[in-house]
Amino acid sequence: MTTTEQTAAERLEKQFRFLTEIDRLKHVERQNILADSSRRENSAEHSWHLAVLALCLSEHATARGFDLFKVVQLLLIHDIVEIDAGDAFLHDAGALAAQAAKEQAAAERIFGLLPDDQRDSWLALWHEFESGTSAESLLARALDRVQPALLHEATDGVIWQKYGTTHAQIQAKMAVVRDAAPPLWARIQQIIARARAQGKLA
Amino acid sequence: MTTTEQTAAERLEKQFRFLTEIDRLKHVERQNILADSSRRENSAEHSWHLAVLALCLSEHATARGFDLFKVVQLLLIHDIVEIDAGDAFLHDAGALAAQAAKEQAAAERIFGLLPDDQRDSWLALWHEFESGTSAESLLARALDRVQPALLHEATDGVIWQKYGTTHAQIQAKMAVVRDAAPPLWARIQQIIARARAQGKLA
Repeated sequence: MTTTEQTAAERLEKQFRFLTEIDRLKHVERQNILADSSRRENSAEHSWHLAVLALCLSEHATARGFDLFKVVQLLLIHDIVEIDAGDAFLHDAGALAAQAAKEQAAAERIFGLLPDDQRDSWLALWHEFESGTSAESLLARALDRVQPALLHEATDGVIWQKYGTTHAQIQAKMAVVRDAAPPLWARIQQIIARARAQGKLA
Repeated sequence: MTTTEQTAAERLEKQFRFLTEIDRLKHVERQNILADSSRRENSAEHSWHLAVLALCLSEHATARGFDLFKVVQLLLIHDIVEIDAGDAFLHDAGALAAQAAKEQAAAERIFGLLPDDQRDSWLALWHEFESGTSAESLLARALDRVQPALLHEATDGVIWQKYGTTHAQIQAKMAVVRDAAPPLWARIQQIIARARAQGKLA
């Protein structure tokens, strides 16, 4: 085996190691339940759903000329850190602060399984999603709010009710949708208004 | 509300209806089990895993200059038909023939929930995956064979053993990998050889 072949084989081993490791995202449970209320959603199937949302709903984005493939990539990888760090409950400020440090360490460990060039580019993608300043990451973060709203609508807001979520908390979380995709924000206002009328919000 | 606004609202309702419907893919169980052997994999999380494989392994493709975003799109939507048609066991020729008709009807019903232009383009994507003639669909179909092999490796081929899968059946299914991505095919040969040596293949 030549050095080049050995390097190629080593690259592939690292990639297979990473791809086997991320299978664990299928075990990370989210707060949300599925549309038929049968069980909680896991972060792998959530990431798939989000990527399809991006393909389906991109016409509603405020931004023009953005890179939709980039949006999809951000959504496919943004939750991988939860393998180590778990899924933090969105409205708990204390948990979110502690979560940031855990997620940084998780990103370095898990993306660090990849060959160096891929480790660097995937870490950069993850940081882009977290910082949320590019048109692509703003839309990705907005869709990450829209998808749970879709499930809240299907399940009559029982999860909002269970966790005592307030109207103000939801509206604060949805601000990113108003900026990135106003038609989606308007649609979500209907979902929130209905849940509020039904007494599901604290 | 003007006619244009009404049409925009109707488009969004159709898209939300579709996106809620496809939540059901999270309930479609595959034959494969997860890497930790804890349970069977569902088709939504499988689709996510496949899309990440595409992002990670595209350098090993034989084709040059292909559209990686197209590959990812094909993988994200290819299993949606299983919501109606279920997951057919790969080595059963009879089931596969009946499956084709069921999947065609499923594609028309489910993608038919979308606005007409999206229905047409998503149906076209699904047909492209099924026909497997473009560089993108050949790579997508190859990755759809590589991902289960990754799980078979992690679980010591117990699913191959359970279903009495033969060495010839596996090699026939892996032919598409040999053509589309030879380095991945060579790596999978190691997995198959090990399973064979351990007596896991019929």
